[in-house]
Amino acid sequence: MTAASLAFALNRLHGLPALSERLGTPLAEEDIAAILEEAARFAEERIAPGRGQADREGCVLENGRVRTPAHYGPLLKEWREAGWQGLAAPAEHGGQNLPHALWAAVFELASSADMAFALMPMLSAGAIELLAHHASPEQAARFLPPLVSAAWNGTMCLTEPQAGSDLSAIRSRAVPDRAGGFRLSGQKIFITWGENDIAENTLHLVLARLPDAPPGSRGISLFACPKILPDGRRNALRCGGIEHKPGIHASPTCTMLFEEAEGELIGEPHRGLAAMFSMMNAARLAVGVEGVGQCARATQLAEAYAAGRAQGGRPIAEYPDVARMLSEMRSITLAARLLALDCAVALDRARLEGEGEAGSRLALLTPIVKAWCTERGVEVASLGIQVHGGAGYVEETGAAQIWRDARIAPIYEGTNGIQALDLVARKLPRELPAFLALAREAGAAHPALRSPAEALGEAARQLASASPEVAGGAAAPFLDAAGWILGGAWLARAAQADPALAGKADFFLRRLLPRASARLAEALATEG
Amino acid sequence: MTAASLAFALNRLHGLPALSERLGTPLAEEDIAAILEEAARFAEERIAPGRGQADREGCVLENGRVRTPAHYGPLLKEWREAGWQGLAAPAEHGGQNLPHALWAAVFELASSADMAFALMPMLSAGAIELLAHHASPEQAARFLPPLVSAAWNGTMCLTEPQAGSDLSAIRSRAVPDRAGGFRLSGQKIFITWGENDIAENTLHLVLARLPDAPPGSRGISLFACPKILPDGRRNALRCGGIEHKPGIHASPTCTMLFEEAEGELIGEPHRGLAAMFSMMNAARLAVGVEGVGQCARATQLAEAYAAGRAQGGRPIAEYPDVARMLSEMRSITLAARLLALDCAVALDRARLEGEGEAGSRLALLTPIVKAWCTERGVEVASLGIQVHGGAGYVEETGAAQIWRDARIAPIYEGTNGIQALDLVARKLPRELPAFLALAREAGAAHPALRSPAEALGEAARQLASASPEVAGGAAAPFLDAAGWILGGAWLARAAQADPALAGKADFFLRRLLPRASARLAEALATEG
Repeated sequence: MTAASLAFALNRLHGLPALSERLGTPLAEEDIAAILEEAARFAEERIAPGRGQADREGCVLENGRVRTPAHYGPLLKEWREAGWQGLAAPAEHGGQNLPHALWAAVFELASSADMAFALMPMLSAGAIELLAHHASPEQAARFLPPLVSAAWNGTMCLTEPQAGSDLSAIRSRAVPDRAGGFRLSGQKIFITWGENDIAENTLHLVLARLPDAPPGSRGISLFACPKILPDGRRNALRCGGIEHKPGIHASPTCTMLFEEAEGELIGEPHRGLAAMFSMMNAARLAVGVEGVGQCARATQLAEAYAAGRAQGGRPIAEYPDVARMLSEMRSITLAARLLALDCAVALDRARLEGEGEAGSRLALLTPIVKAWCTERGVEVASLGIQVHGGAGYVEETGAAQIWRDARIAPIYEGTNGIQALDLVARKLPRELPAFLALAREAGAAHPALRSPAEALGEAARQLASASPEVAGGAAAPFLDAAGWILGGAWLARAAQADPALAGKADFFLRRLLPRASARLAEALATEG
Repeated sequence: MTAASLAFALNRLHGLPALSERLGTPLAEEDIAAILEEAARFAEERIAPGRGQADREGCVLENGRVRTPAHYGPLLKEWREAGWQGLAAPAEHGGQNLPHALWAAVFELASSADMAFALMPMLSAGAIELLAHHASPEQAARFLPPLVSAAWNGTMCLTEPQAGSDLSAIRSRAVPDRAGGFRLSGQKIFITWGENDIAENTLHLVLARLPDAPPGSRGISLFACPKILPDGRRNALRCGGIEHKPGIHASPTCTMLFEEAEGELIGEPHRGLAAMFSMMNAARLAVGVEGVGQCARATQLAEAYAAGRAQGGRPIAEYPDVARMLSEMRSITLAARLLALDCAVALDRARLEGEGEAGSRLALLTPIVKAWCTERGVEVASLGIQVHGGAGYVEETGAAQIWRDARIAPIYEGTNGIQALDLVARKLPRELPAFLALAREAGAAHPALRSPAEALGEAARQLASASPEVAGGAAAPFLDAAGWILGGAWLARAAQADPALAGKADFFLRRLLPRASARLAEALATEG
């Protein structure tokens, strides 16, 4: 069902067949549907059955090695053999060169099946993306094939204890060695899949400072450090600890210690942050898609429970308040999916067209998708618990795990507060006309959207020139309002393309859209 | 700080000194402040330090016995010696006969310190309440003193696998034995603190059917079954399993098996459900207060973290988006506290005055407090995680535990959906004038509230005569709107009484109150 929804979205709403032709990898509607059917089959039959078990087993750090759930090794092998990792990767390094939007759709399915497992492919995709754009041809030829095949996994080593949202405070350092490489030293925290027992090797992409680096964010360089060196030696890096977390138990969140580890520079010296940011759009979009995936899984579980659980002689799904919760879950899931795919298509288009309209759209939609879809992921998962009643608070039903897992997504890859600031303080001033065009486009999608979309545009105009204090205080509710309105517009368009979706669109526009006005009022009520 | 806020609320806003005089246990403002100071000291110094440890240890079922965290035994002894359990219990059975509102305030402190531990006193208070009203004097004399002293704990055995929100489906049965008592058989689930290793004995209050019982809800009787019989034998009841839950790990949630257990009838045959419902207001209020307690704890943790964590050279508390989250947490915590205490005072007044204005107020406020304050508990705890950034998803900070613990409160003691139905489908038709008076009262508290309160009253008029389908679909958002408006009114009054609270009231009324309009619009947009 999700596969059909994704295919409908990409084929009928987001124009992927035409776009894929322009991208040089033409896909017919049936091709897209078939790929998604196959991905859904893989996700449901191979990944999803182990999600609960993975949560219960979690990860264990023993003698510097991280033991992941027992079935993850075989599962990664299947993932690798099925070739999913390379879907959107460069063909010259073993990938299929298909649109990023298709990868986003496949990733929704994988993440929905087991968010903890899917984090490894997600981070590897980010590493592939980064290397494809910033590594030398020689480096790409060495590093990309094993990442694209999923023989290796990739990590992003950014955060340090004193440098979280503020990466300019990074202290890790890289010193040239006599062999033309570098020795890296420092401590990185919150490194997803930083150490594990299932990939053949792990390539760490590490931000660090060269000896002559200027202070601040313009003095940070990017390095590649493999866990195992080409000659088979272990590199001088190790996992110093893993975090104890409320969710994604099976995804090891590692403290990584670099102790004069051998690394090589990727890209220009001191330009590491810029290189990292060039893949940030894709990474943030992926996290937004995780939110969509958790919405979808929570909805599926809650629908099944509500259909099967009877009280007072009829299924609880028929009781109006349960029906309300299910309608909310269904309509938000679809809105979030359509919005995330809009952003994914913009990413493909931006690569094709450069920094024009598509680039602006991508710049604006990325923080909205990252924050709005991940907030909805937690919210819809919480509704899913509520539909289950008492059983929702019992781990065996799986509803609680989705909620626990989903809660990380508003935090990592830039907290949602950072996303909101990015949208309001950075993007709005630069891209105000593009934002106003987005709002107008949304307002034209349905009469119910006209007035909220106008109010959104008006708020954008005000905030684009507001003081940093006002913009900062208004940012989160403004972003949230934008999400409700743009998501609602996609539902309206979906209902026009397929009348069977009219119920979802109608529910959203009549019952949920008022939240946009509340959040806009909140945004505009900051103190001046 | 919380103690001072509670004392201010009870003394200056809710008129507890005058009310306590009418209740026959006069308390001066200083008495109230001193009791709350002492309760806060106990909660912070004796209960709170073990909350994280209790979460990590959790409960273990071994050979039918439940092992709770190691420090819970000594802690219960301290709780018992300090005499808190009897605060509002009848003086003739060892209690202090103080107002229920004072107990509610003390319970906020205890629950905020360790929600899992505080559940035992909460359930025991419910048992005391029930027995004080429905047991014979002879039964009261036997059962109340050990419950009031907290030597024993009490449970509420209602839910069965097929009977959750619909208690009329209860199947447990009670057969008269030859000694004038009864033998109880059946399976009860989700029994909080049903089995434990720290109380001297456990008194189970059990709903079951007599052999001649009519079907449905009018054929259910109430029985008292002690775990250990007066002659020292174990009664024929046992714990068949404990639930694996996302939170309140240290509170055992038990399946209780009654295997011809010896019990005695409490109150009239077939009137058990009515007896149980007579304490439902107090129990639901207590769950709402749990929500307040989690708000308070989450806020306290987040404030401390945001003051101590620097990024870019200044504490993150100074960044506008973090400041926004902290303001939201603070203002919601106070609004929820004031609303819950309004309900608690109405409970005291209703007992004094019978079913007049106070009874109506209690009937209306109870579901609002239960649902609105528990939703806010989860939401504020989630904001607390977000303020912590990546550290919020690491269990060691404690922010995630509050969120995991808080999530049960919207479910038990009647799901929030049931609360909303109770408000809209049962109470509004009966108590419409009283609800309209509440709304008018709120509208008069501040100019910003006038129009939302009018809209609330208008919605109440419409829903009071709506079809069950429409009322059911509208119930949850209507209740939520009522909570935002009544909570806002209390903040406005608080700011009038103490100008130092103007910032909180102002933030709430300008920035959060628009949510009430959104939820009212949602409520009125159901299909007809």
